[in-house]
Amino acid sequence: MKIKVVAKNYFKPEKSEDFIDLCRKLVEETLKEEGCIEYGLYQNSERSDILSMIEEWEDEHSLKKHFESGHFKEIVPLVVDFLEKEAEVDKYSNKIL
Amino acid sequence: MKIKVVAKNYFKPEKSEDFIDLCRKLVEETLKEEGCIEYGLYQNSERSDILSMIEEWEDEHSLKKHFESGHFKEIVPLVVDFLEKEAEVDKYSNKIL
Repeated sequence: MKIKVVAKNYFKPEKSEDFIDLCRKLVEETLKEEGCIEYGLYQNSERSDILSMIEEWEDEHSLKKHFESGHFKEIVPLVVDFLEKEAEVDKYSNKIL
Repeated sequence: MKIKVVAKNYFKPEKSEDFIDLCRKLVEETLKEEGCIEYGLYQNSERSDILSMIEEWEDEHSLKKHFESGHFKEIVPLVVDFLEKEAEVDKYSNKIL
């Protein structure tokens, strides 16, 4: 069962460059992971202070391995400092239609 | 420029079947549209009362045509009756990374 994840990040405007720089390494390393189908950072069209990571994974196992990866554990705690509030993370593993 | 859209629907639990039935026709017709890369309905893993349409379009033009389509104009106003609150629609047309 494939899994989609949308992680909506409200970053501090003065920290946008730092936020994107950190995400660059995260995206680069994550795209090399087995089971990663898609992993990209997108700017919201209505709210320029929202950058969302839109992801797709082969299965639960590959997503679990991602959370355990060195780059995830190293980078994500640093990213948090550049956010206005906690990211809103939505996971979808059940395709209805 | 490709466009991603995530439309998060909080449906009335007693209306889940009606909601999905209506969406079935919408998905079926939308997938035939020119410029529609992806259009699927997914259940949120943490909140079973959230069903999100996750979409990808070739460009602004194809998304605009979708909003003007007969099936969109016919079905979307009906869907609204089955929702607890207004859908949260996020559009992403700028891929940063």
